[in-house]
Amino acid sequence: MVSWNNMDSLKSFDELKKTTPVDLAKVMTGENGAERVKKYSVPMAEGMAYNYGAKAVDDTILDKLAAFADEAQLVDKFEELYNGEVINTGEKRLVLHQLCRGQLGNDVVADGVNKRAFYTEQQAKIADFVKKVHAGEIVNEKGEKFTTAVQIGIGGSDLGPRAIYIALENWAKKTGNFKMEAKFISNVDPDDAAAVLNSVDVAHSIFVLVSKSGTTLETLTNESFVKDALKKAGLDASKHMIAVTSETSPLAKSSDYLAAFFMDDYIGGRFSSSSAVGGAILSLAFGPDVFADFLAGAAAEDKLATNKDLKKNPALLDALIGVYERNVLGMGTTAVLPYSQALSRFPAHLQQVDMESNGKSVNRFGEPISYPTGPVIYGEPGTNGQHSFYQLLHQGTDIIPLQFIGFKNSQIGTDVDIQGSTSQQKLCANVAAQIVAFACGKDDENKNKKFEGGRPSSIIVGDQLTPKTMGALLSHFENKVMFQGFAWNINSFDQEGVQLGKVLAKKVLAHDTDGALKVYSDMLNI
Amino acid sequence: MVSWNNMDSLKSFDELKKTTPVDLAKVMTGENGAERVKKYSVPMAEGMAYNYGAKAVDDTILDKLAAFADEAQLVDKFEELYNGEVINTGEKRLVLHQLCRGQLGNDVVADGVNKRAFYTEQQAKIADFVKKVHAGEIVNEKGEKFTTAVQIGIGGSDLGPRAIYIALENWAKKTGNFKMEAKFISNVDPDDAAAVLNSVDVAHSIFVLVSKSGTTLETLTNESFVKDALKKAGLDASKHMIAVTSETSPLAKSSDYLAAFFMDDYIGGRFSSSSAVGGAILSLAFGPDVFADFLAGAAAEDKLATNKDLKKNPALLDALIGVYERNVLGMGTTAVLPYSQALSRFPAHLQQVDMESNGKSVNRFGEPISYPTGPVIYGEPGTNGQHSFYQLLHQGTDIIPLQFIGFKNSQIGTDVDIQGSTSQQKLCANVAAQIVAFACGKDDENKNKKFEGGRPSSIIVGDQLTPKTMGALLSHFENKVMFQGFAWNINSFDQEGVQLGKVLAKKVLAHDTDGALKVYSDMLNI
Repeated sequence: MVSWNNMDSLKSFDELKKTTPVDLAKVMTGENGAERVKKYSVPMAEGMAYNYGAKAVDDTILDKLAAFADEAQLVDKFEELYNGEVINTGEKRLVLHQLCRGQLGNDVVADGVNKRAFYTEQQAKIADFVKKVHAGEIVNEKGEKFTTAVQIGIGGSDLGPRAIYIALENWAKKTGNFKMEAKFISNVDPDDAAAVLNSVDVAHSIFVLVSKSGTTLETLTNESFVKDALKKAGLDASKHMIAVTSETSPLAKSSDYLAAFFMDDYIGGRFSSSSAVGGAILSLAFGPDVFADFLAGAAAEDKLATNKDLKKNPALLDALIGVYERNVLGMGTTAVLPYSQALSRFPAHLQQVDMESNGKSVNRFGEPISYPTGPVIYGEPGTNGQHSFYQLLHQGTDIIPLQFIGFKNSQIGTDVDIQGSTSQQKLCANVAAQIVAFACGKDDENKNKKFEGGRPSSIIVGDQLTPKTMGALLSHFENKVMFQGFAWNINSFDQEGVQLGKVLAKKVLAHDTDGALKVYSDMLNI
Repeated sequence: MVSWNNMDSLKSFDELKKTTPVDLAKVMTGENGAERVKKYSVPMAEGMAYNYGAKAVDDTILDKLAAFADEAQLVDKFEELYNGEVINTGEKRLVLHQLCRGQLGNDVVADGVNKRAFYTEQQAKIADFVKKVHAGEIVNEKGEKFTTAVQIGIGGSDLGPRAIYIALENWAKKTGNFKMEAKFISNVDPDDAAAVLNSVDVAHSIFVLVSKSGTTLETLTNESFVKDALKKAGLDASKHMIAVTSETSPLAKSSDYLAAFFMDDYIGGRFSSSSAVGGAILSLAFGPDVFADFLAGAAAEDKLATNKDLKKNPALLDALIGVYERNVLGMGTTAVLPYSQALSRFPAHLQQVDMESNGKSVNRFGEPISYPTGPVIYGEPGTNGQHSFYQLLHQGTDIIPLQFIGFKNSQIGTDVDIQGSTSQQKLCANVAAQIVAFACGKDDENKNKKFEGGRPSSIIVGDQLTPKTMGALLSHFENKVMFQGFAWNINSFDQEGVQLGKVLAKKVLAHDTDGALKVYSDMLNI
């Protein structure tokens, strides 16, 4: 049995606070620095590595972090999770997204069903359906093939699948795996749906309606928006739409859809990319085999997260270094900086995964806690960010931990050699340079040109962004967030903080307001 | 004459620190709250308003802020700026981006040239060129019209123009002002250029190469990338490319371009959207009249920023409330949350405008300062963000000031009425609801469902996102950042923090590395 305790009640956390901070600029200089970078690296799945040479840790701090991981029973808690305990205490639910991609422990049976069998069955159903779409066996009313897939969903039903689609689109085109273009409608802003509909050939589009509960305001509104457009184009909406939902939702058995694929309450929205939520749209776009590879990459990375040896568990290491930065060094934000244009929307997805999971002020028993929890997460791809907000990262008054991601090879492979190097080499040279610039800084008589250094970063390096490495990356960050939630003794799997806004918005629409809310409503002409 | 002093040396700042913080949840409740929201509003240009009812200020704090504005001579400093003083002391340059959109003060003559005349002349040259492109007088080698414009630029030559293009694309299509599709290549990642080139018809594309110095690594690399693709397609690159640069750059008089349009050293990259940097691509996309409207909106908003009465100067108010939050309340990040899908990339642009300008640790004389300066800026459009990171904004351990933006009307006008309200009404109801939820919170016996409230926000409200309101919005934030830089006594117009990374990247590419840098280079196969 594990026990759930606040971080500040643990002896090992006190010990961690007593450690001497590392002078990063000093330890990263010279041959010492080279040795550090070689040593502070841990293999990830699919040939990737998590390198923390430029993080402000040393052997002593790492030992204390390992002791903390043990005392807080972080890997044991993950074990409880994948063996089917009710980890999401707030909503009294199991947490099973990892089970969509592999069996890590015992069989998990809930509601009388083996959940691994259930998730793989849904993937098989999707694969079967998608193959028929691609083969022209499932077609529009005129018997013509569908050419575009449009996801209608918001939050976890949008950000993850969209980020992964963008991440793999060029890879798929290059490798002959591109089956259909995918588009996404998410915002209740009518201009979102209208612009997407104006950009596609609706007669050859298949819409994927995604809502676990079948009650999400934005998604149902956009469904009606799309149905309206289909009707106006003289089309039968039920021949153009599939649903991804839970078996108990009103959408599950409706004749409004060509087919319905299921997830369940044990898959949180922000963790649902590995379920049918990502499975349907990504399989339509790239084929079910590509999606299976994505899941395999994630499963391989999940396995590493079960390792009790901190130095062999990249997600746990990343999590605990983050906790050390947040709760000992007092750093409040983290930037995710992929040197890969294909990962342009991955930071936006991680923003949800991280901030919605760990932006909490009470522990898992609903008691207020007195230490900071989840940081603000943001980021843009490099080298773009270098020409934007890196000024503050280098010379601003706050120190911001950085998470770089880089790949040795591009996806498309078209490149030019200018002044003795390719664009891909220039891209990689820049990320290497940035890590050292942030860590070591540079003195200058002109204080305006001085770099203090001491700004910590880590880098995940891979050969190429592929379905498998994408899966591994996603798993890494999901598991990092999970371990941090365990460390902070919070429930990372509910999101009560989104409720109040929904309640008040309904009041506004019902014109049931007074006070300030009425003034704002009037101001916006509602 | 103005005098430049650190914020913590001003008596009015001491007075500000002595004020009693506002209990936002309390003052925003009931009819008092309604009165506050009505009262704390200031008109902006083009019928917009900046409402700060839900900010943690009261009349006392506002009086102290006004006293601070006076003592720090913030509006006088803006006056010096627009009258042509050398405000960018680090680089010894004037700061003239506002002059691209209007004459606020005296004639500014530099290098023997009236700069207002110079900027308007460039806009006229662009308008003339663009009209010929649209009329089919300037055509490709086969005499065919160009159908697509592709900007090649990074940082300020990308983020602002791209954000504005996305902001106005649907408006232009709806109103018959859409002339050509625009695309953007920025990242040195070869997959960025390759993917854009794969998505356009290069034979009918005109490329806009944007680099003030003519030496930006990414931009010159991508120019070669594009020229290579044009050559492989059997096309003459010089018939497909224009340049936007400074008159002294190597690009200025090259025969490689159909035409060249000029900016100068007095326009910082991140403030260059109003110059030829935004002018060329936006005029190609929407026509020069639309760009002129955009400038007119910005000029009208600039005028408001010259007002010495704090309560009539929205940019100054926004700036000083931000300083109060940062330096008295100790809040380190700010989220920009437009309830408009069209503004999806505006936060990314503001990230550069703000963080590159004010992410500084030395004052304008190069002396270290001892108070926090520019905050981290990030954001995504609502309602998307509500289903992503708002959990942390509502219930996280850090309080994060919020900047909402909302419009009464959509751009396209296509909408559906579901359950008694349109999508546009739902969108607006959500932003109204969020403001009150953040400010007032809600008690609950279950502490996990309790909202503390006291989370400050402001909202900019307009009728519709149009070229004029877009211009006004841009001006508002540019001027806010300028005033904050003045308040912190830093130079908001240089960016020495981006240099070290460039130097080290060159070393990596020259294989002139040792220590940690060599290990990272090897790791990335450079």
